[in-house]
Amino acid sequence: MPAFLNDRFVENDEAVLHVSDLSIQRGYAIFDFCRTINGIPLFLHDHLERFYASASAMHLPLKKNPEELSFIIHELIKRTAVSEAGIRIMLTGGNSTDSYHPAEPNLVITCNPVQTAIQSDFEKGYSIITHEYQRELPLVKTINYTMAVWLQPMLKNKEADDFLYYNKESVTEFPRCNAFIVTRDQKLVTPAHNILKGITRKHILLLARDMMTVEERNILIDELSTAHEIFLTATTKKIIPVIKMNNKIIGDGRPGVVTRKLYQKFLELENSLTHLVSL
Amino acid sequence: MPAFLNDRFVENDEAVLHVSDLSIQRGYAIFDFCRTINGIPLFLHDHLERFYASASAMHLPLKKNPEELSFIIHELIKRTAVSEAGIRIMLTGGNSTDSYHPAEPNLVITCNPVQTAIQSDFEKGYSIITHEYQRELPLVKTINYTMAVWLQPMLKNKEADDFLYYNKESVTEFPRCNAFIVTRDQKLVTPAHNILKGITRKHILLLARDMMTVEERNILIDELSTAHEIFLTATTKKIIPVIKMNNKIIGDGRPGVVTRKLYQKFLELENSLTHLVSL
Repeated sequence: MPAFLNDRFVENDEAVLHVSDLSIQRGYAIFDFCRTINGIPLFLHDHLERFYASASAMHLPLKKNPEELSFIIHELIKRTAVSEAGIRIMLTGGNSTDSYHPAEPNLVITCNPVQTAIQSDFEKGYSIITHEYQRELPLVKTINYTMAVWLQPMLKNKEADDFLYYNKESVTEFPRCNAFIVTRDQKLVTPAHNILKGITRKHILLLARDMMTVEERNILIDELSTAHEIFLTATTKKIIPVIKMNNKIIGDGRPGVVTRKLYQKFLELENSLTHLVSL
Repeated sequence: MPAFLNDRFVENDEAVLHVSDLSIQRGYAIFDFCRTINGIPLFLHDHLERFYASASAMHLPLKKNPEELSFIIHELIKRTAVSEAGIRIMLTGGNSTDSYHPAEPNLVITCNPVQTAIQSDFEKGYSIITHEYQRELPLVKTINYTMAVWLQPMLKNKEADDFLYYNKESVTEFPRCNAFIVTRDQKLVTPAHNILKGITRKHILLLARDMMTVEERNILIDELSTAHEIFLTATTKKIIPVIKMNNKIIGDGRPGVVTRKLYQKFLELENSLTHLVSL
């Protein structure tokens, strides 16, 4: 699969960074990730907007403007010729001379086949475990997933699908997904603070506003056990119902009514944005 | 400068990692850093011991044993032919197929000229700022310095030399250095928990035990303002007195008596380990 490195398209094996790059030296880099359907990058505008916000927050200057990046991404999709792909846009701290202070950033864009969640993943749902942890600089999509990767063997031992982080008494997010609950009084609630604001999260909130009361606010960990439904959202996972938490069944152990309705509406949105209408 | 990559010596520009490496994808890697004097790597045994402990803590298997690494490092020093060099030994999460789970780790060893603190740096001392932050997995030397690098512009604005981290009410460490205080009753105290245990710290503690009472324990942030002396230790900085904290002078604003004595003893130790005795 070809890639884009700083100012040119390269073959996959040429997509390398010198070990002096600050991503390798100090884990200092940001990224964003979107996927294509029929070669069309879904919510690209949103992803680019967040990518520029992350770059700015981390004091990483980006020479190319969003139109240029968009052009490169479309060209990369064309050259890759994969209908469903994951596009990863990265900006690193650059080849640092003292392995501590950022230099001219390196821009890397890759495009690889991606496996997204399908209907059977939705029906199966997730078994999750709560874990106390707060991501550093949570509003920024940095590459720091040290804790998430480190925890993976524990996940396997506990036969669970993912961790749900909480900070003191408040639910925040999954390592790579946002959390939602449907309360007993049929409100859709999602954490407002100390999280990365996901692009799928954004569109689910927009879709849900036509259906029900929606709240972005603090969610106490205790509220989870009384929730009617819990689900997560992410670019490759779309919507996945949580059917078990800390080995306790949520609702009736099957995807809830609201979760299923939002899932259907999301698939319709996806479809409308990435399929040409046949007249 | 040549480098070592997995199983062979390479030229500097060949010391590259594919962008699928988990250090670049998720900031997942560990490292250690030692320096040479007259071509002799100082405290190499200690650094290798910590390197293997970090690798093990992060579930990163290392195929080479310490003797093999030591041989490679000595060979690299010979090929680099620099009398004072910094040796960086890195082990990454490897070229991950799903950009999330570790693969076969990549081993990278570099050897570059390094600037260490000299007498005038010691005399000048450091002006520091306290900052609330706790490193994740503090006992492990991961590459996660996101916060430290991110804070650098603030350091420049405040015209300070470094941040001293504290967690709730307790002092922990500097981003790359350990902290020590000399109390009013002439005890040497250094934080015991939630820190990376530095190699220079270890040797300062050994040297100090012949001189005075030494305690590894929790230090409350309030204790700093009444301390007679404060100093920091690190591989390239050796010992640097803190002469100002949050714009308040420490002691009489000059290197303290204990700090100076330990500095001299440390230089003597360094000298004895890295200079052949001329008979």
